This record gives sequence, structure tokens and C-alpha cells, in this order.
Amino acid sequence: MTDGPRYRARVAYLGTFFHGWQIQKNAPRTVQAVLEAALSAFDGAAVRVVAAGRTDAGVHADGQVVHFDLTRKRDPERLLEGVNALLPWDVRVTDAEEAVPGFHARRSAVWKEYLYRWSTERILLPKDSLVLAPIFAQADVGRMRDAARRLAGEKDFGVFGVQLARKTRMDDAASTSRRLHFVRVEARGSEIRALFRGDAFLRGMVRSMCGLLADVGRGRMAPDRADALLATGDRALLSQKAPAHGLTLLRVAYPARRAARSGVPE
Amino acid sequence: MTDGPRYRARVAYLGTFFHGWQIQKNAPRTVQAVLEAALSAFDGAAVRVVAAGRTDAGVHADGQVVHFDLTRKRDPERLLEGVNALLPWDVRVTDAEEAVPGFHARRSAVWKEYLYRWSTERILLPKDSLVLAPIFAQADVGRMRDAARRLAGEKDFGVFGVQLARKTRMDDAASTSRRLHFVRVEARGSEIRALFRGDAFLRGMVRSMCGLLADVGRGRMAPDRADALLATGDRALLSQKAPAHGLTLLRVAYPARRAARSGVPE
Repeated sequence: MTDGPRYRARVAYLGTFFHGWQIQKNAPRTVQAVLEAALSAFDGAAVRVVAAGRTDAGVHADGQVVHFDLTRKRDPERLLEGVNALLPWDVRVTDAEEAVPGFHARRSAVWKEYLYRWSTERILLPKDSLVLAPIFAQADVGRMRDAARRLAGEKDFGVFGVQLARKTRMDDAASTSRRLHFVRVEARGSEIRALFRGDAFLRGMVRSMCGLLADVGRGRMAPDRADALLATGDRALLSQKAPAHGLTLLRVAYPARRAARSGVPE
Repeated sequence: MTDGPRYRARVAYLGTFFHGWQIQKNAPRTVQAVLEAALSAFDGAAVRVVAAGRTDAGVHADGQVVHFDLTRKRDPERLLEGVNALLPWDVRVTDAEEAVPGFHARRSAVWKEYLYRWSTERILLPKDSLVLAPIFAQADVGRMRDAARRLAGEKDFGVFGVQLARKTRMDDAASTSRRLHFVRVEARGSEIRALFRGDAFLRGMVRSMCGLLADVGRGRMAPDRADALLATGDRALLSQKAPAHGLTLLRVAYPARRAARSGVPE
């Protein structure tokens, strides 16, 4: 990492043609790799990017947040235009600014929102099939809502996902407790959406919960299956994970700038 | 062409990764080629497909209509599922039925609707950038509407496009007169849409008109430029064509089935 100025940026991508966020051996095209290549070309030095959330293969983002250090100060507007000109069409930097001291895209995040989108159409239009997953046409949204309510709260969500070991947080590396603020399910025409807001998420947690919601919606299981899963932690009770392409990282929230500046830990 | 039963189908595609509708030499991937390959594999014999409108490279369709002859009768539901299973993700047959005798996807069409979509966002999300073209953020929708009204009617639209020579219509091969029922411009959030309905369209006509509308919206020319173009036929007065990826063939209308069956020519 350089000692140069730190920037914070919002990034949108269509996950379809990426092997997820994180750089991997033998997976040539990841969002991180493409973004680091563009930023490095812009800066003239190797730039490393840290994201708020490492999305899985096929998952999209409208509002991923990243931070990175450059070798020298740059006008955020120039940065935005310069980097977008270097990026492929399926990744855009939608916003950039100099970060407050100590800002960290993942550790400073207060909450994140993930949106899952289904379509009740029998045959999806190709443009929609990139970002919506199919669901049973007569899916019962009331039942889905019932299950969704049972999921929210501060709980051990270990049954729904795995904790990613992080060097920076070895102290709570084993904990699978998280605070899920809410899960809102709503229908809009032929679309059903589930919006998840939480302090942090386990890997695979949202898609696992969406598999449950879809099965509850189609009547394959009762809404209280959510309680049973949380109470027993028995993975045999799980539904199949909902497909990656229905999921979008929508938004990441940080403390208000004034608070951050006044010393409140980010 | 075979003497087997004729089918009519509605087809949706994302034009992004296609070299347009029509099979061409040295252009490996066209919608017609991909659809004929799937139908031929399904039927076990070479199937030719005729479309209502031959969309250009990059143009999308939500409701293209096609006809084709198969060697034997097929259940439309089986046809739909069988062919979709053979198609790539960016083309879907959304509807199929046996056609009335003499049905022809292009010649039987009564009118077509094309939709052009712009976004006033400075930086489009990648998923939106596939189907929306950028437009000046302060585009004046009232002025665009004014120009749009001047375009509608039964007129010689030769300045906006070219007539495609068609073997089946040599009698009017030279005419560039068309009836444009309406051009409706509306704003929805950060999106501006122009909906065109007409008996038939010249090649490039909608995109050429949309180039004009965008220039009128941003104040680069007055709404009455539409009148001048129609009156003089002077292509030097034209704007640059709007990009292909903002355009979608939305719908094709045919005579009511009862009328067609009772002998009214389609």
C-alpha cells in the first residue's frame, strides 16, 4: 500500500461476465482485477482496491464501495472520467471522492443492502434474465413476508452461510452472529423483490435465505421453517440457494462525514 | 419452403451480441441464424424464418414476430419449450401458435411499434447501458414532443431512411411514403422514451428521427427542423443517428384472428 492520498469510489457492475469480485488464480476476469488494471493505468503505479463486500460470481452491484490509494492527488471528476474510459462496459465508477483519513471500504461500513429480484413471468425477456431469477408464477408474497420477518434481528445466521476468515478481524473470525435490520419483500407487477439490510453478511447468506423465501412462496415449506433453521442450525432443512444472477449489492452506508471527521470511529 | 404447417411466434432478443437480424456472409452471429439453427434442430429439417422487421446490428426486440414452416404439426407448448432449450440466453421465443393460412410475419403486419430509450444519468449503470442511450441531462422533453408531433402523419420520410428493396413488393420499391401513426415522447424519472407506431418503417428511420429529437431536446436545433427536413428532403439538415442500442422493436400488430379467418386479407 502506498502512502499517497486515499480515495473512495462507488462502483456498479453487471456480474454476468465476471468470476466474482475477488482476484483469483486462473480466473482471468474478476471485477477487482479489471478495476485495479484501470486504476493502475490511470495512476501509473500498481493500485490495490479494497471493496465493502466481495460479491460472488454472477452477483451484480449498483452501489459497491471501494477504497484505494493513489501516488498523488487527483481531481475526483478527472479520476471518474479517466478511469471509466479505461474500464470495460460492464463496470462503471459512478462516484469518486477523496476519503477521510482512516476510511476503509469494508471496516468503516455501517450497513449494506442487498436486493434479490425474481420474475413470475414464464419466459423472461433476455435483458431481464440477466438480473432476475425465475419464481413460481403463483408465488404467495404474504407467506414470503411472513418468513422474511422471522429472519430479521440479531441472530446466529451460521446455518445460512459461512464466515470469511479475515486477517483484520481474527478476534471474531469464528462468530456467525450478525444483525439483519430487515428483510422487505414486495411485489411490483411481475416482479418480486426482497431487500436485505444488515450490519454485515455471511458468505452465501442472502442467496440461501432467498432459496428459503422462494420455497415458502411456492408452498413447498411453511414460513416457520425460518425459525426451525435458526433454532437448530440444521443445514439439512435448507432450500437450494437462489441463483447468483438475481442478486445485486445495492448500497453501502457509512457514518455521516461530519461524524467521521469529529473522530467517531468509522 | 416446405408445405408443412405454418407457425407464428413472438421472439425477444438482446441485440448487444448480435450482428442484427438478418443472416449475412461473414457475420457469424445473427438472430435469424441462431433461430433457424434452433428450429432446424427441433424439426429435423432446414427451417427458414421470416421476421416482421429486420432489426439492425445492436437493436433489441421485445416483441419481434416471425413465421416459419415445419415438416409436421407440433404442439405449440412443446415447440416453445423445445426451441428455447436450444437457443442461447439472449434470444427467447415468448409465444408460439399455429398460423392462419396465408399468414406472413411481414406482409400481414398492420403496424409496428419501436421504442427508443434514453437516460439523463451522467454515468449509466452497466445493466442500463445495454438498452438506454445517454442524453443531455437537461434535455427539454416539451421541445422533443413538439418535434415529435411534426413527424407523425402520412408523409414521405425518405430523408430519414432508405427503402429496402423487396422482391415481394417491387411495385412500391421506390416509394418512401409511410404512415407514422404517432411519436409519443415521455419522461419517467431519469429516463426519456420515444414510442413510434407506424404502418411500416424505412431502414434507419427511427434512429434518424431520434437523433433529431435528442438534438432538439438539448437545444441544438429548433423543433421545426422536423418540418424543414420533411419539406426539403435535405439530408444535410439531419442530426447524427441515435445509437442502435437505445432502440427496441416492441410490438407488431396483426388483424384480429376472426377477421383473418373470414377471408379479410392479412
